[in-house]
Amino acid sequence: MNQSMGRFITLEGTEGVGKSTNLQFIQSVLEQHQIDYQLTREPGGTPLAEEVRELLLANRDEIVADDAELLLVFAARAQHLEQVIRPALNNGRWVLCDRFTDATFAYQGGGRGLDTDFISRLESMVQRGLQPDLTILLDLPVEVGLARASQRAELDRFENEKLAFFEQVRSAYLARAAAEPDRFAVIDASGTLDQVQEQIRVVLEQFLQQS
Amino acid sequence: MNQSMGRFITLEGTEGVGKSTNLQFIQSVLEQHQIDYQLTREPGGTPLAEEVRELLLANRDEIVADDAELLLVFAARAQHLEQVIRPALNNGRWVLCDRFTDATFAYQGGGRGLDTDFISRLESMVQRGLQPDLTILLDLPVEVGLARASQRAELDRFENEKLAFFEQVRSAYLARAAAEPDRFAVIDASGTLDQVQEQIRVVLEQFLQQS
Repeated sequence: MNQSMGRFITLEGTEGVGKSTNLQFIQSVLEQHQIDYQLTREPGGTPLAEEVRELLLANRDEIVADDAELLLVFAARAQHLEQVIRPALNNGRWVLCDRFTDATFAYQGGGRGLDTDFISRLESMVQRGLQPDLTILLDLPVEVGLARASQRAELDRFENEKLAFFEQVRSAYLARAAAEPDRFAVIDASGTLDQVQEQIRVVLEQFLQQS
Repeated sequence: MNQSMGRFITLEGTEGVGKSTNLQFIQSVLEQHQIDYQLTREPGGTPLAEEVRELLLANRDEIVADDAELLLVFAARAQHLEQVIRPALNNGRWVLCDRFTDATFAYQGGGRGLDTDFISRLESMVQRGLQPDLTILLDLPVEVGLARASQRAELDRFENEKLAFFEQVRSAYLARAAAEPDRFAVIDASGTLDQVQEQIRVVLEQFLQQS
């Protein structure tokens, strides 16, 4: 590992797993360790990429073609990598990103059923070998997560998908975690908030010791 | 040729070659022959794709990463193909499109210097073998075209590029035309409007006889 590079942490999970709350908890742990980090998210993270995010999430009459959706996600990612993620890491800052390419494999690959070989090729093109150093996957039975998410005021185009879609998203997430156990930490998000955060703390403390 | 499918005509060229005027002329010829056609353009052609077009053309403080630009172009194209071009052709309507994938090879490949192999792979993914039946390329020395285009009120992000950029765009267009002489008709756009339109008429009459 190049000591001058920042570390790249991503947080993943389906709807209602508690991503926002636990993102704040991860921030608090990083701050306790006086880590200089950049908080960001996908799709988004730059003005242009946030505009693409709005296009992606908007509920619209026009049916969005699956491949158009996939290409918009990677367009936003290419911009985010160039403008935010690479510069931060190269300057020694850590990056904490709310969703990244694992979400694309889960939502567009698992959920929409798009060709994962093509997703991999897009990944190679825009990431050029860059991968997260740690990916925290909050995992929860889909029904439980959707019941939580449904309490929100308005659902976006993805949150309006059906149960079977999210089952496929969850399965794809878990398959990726199983394939890359060194990078992934799968957190059982079904317990109390304290239980979940204790698991996250253990993962982060271990990661910080190695960094 | 499947007689029930519509025919797909694209119009290409760099800035200031007279694309708008000659597009109207092409329409008038199609109408004289009572061809049922759909006029459309790229990037754009659907509400979502037009929103992507606005993202692409806007002058902005944020530098747009070359690969983000390329992926936005193909995202708009995927949507356009799915929502407009394929349905029209499948219904037997002709499609007349102001710019298509040759423009991507010219602008993002030639102008920006992006890997043409990757552009080809994106092309295969979203077009799945669909290609224009006829591509009319209006060709003009770059200086002449830019002098014409500069008289417009406001230049977009592409029109604000430098001379060398457009030289590369023109070269890439001509190289593609040379590689696919059966599909391309290269029109010398340096003459009078009557001379240019006479060339276009000959090309279209010949194409109509074969269709």
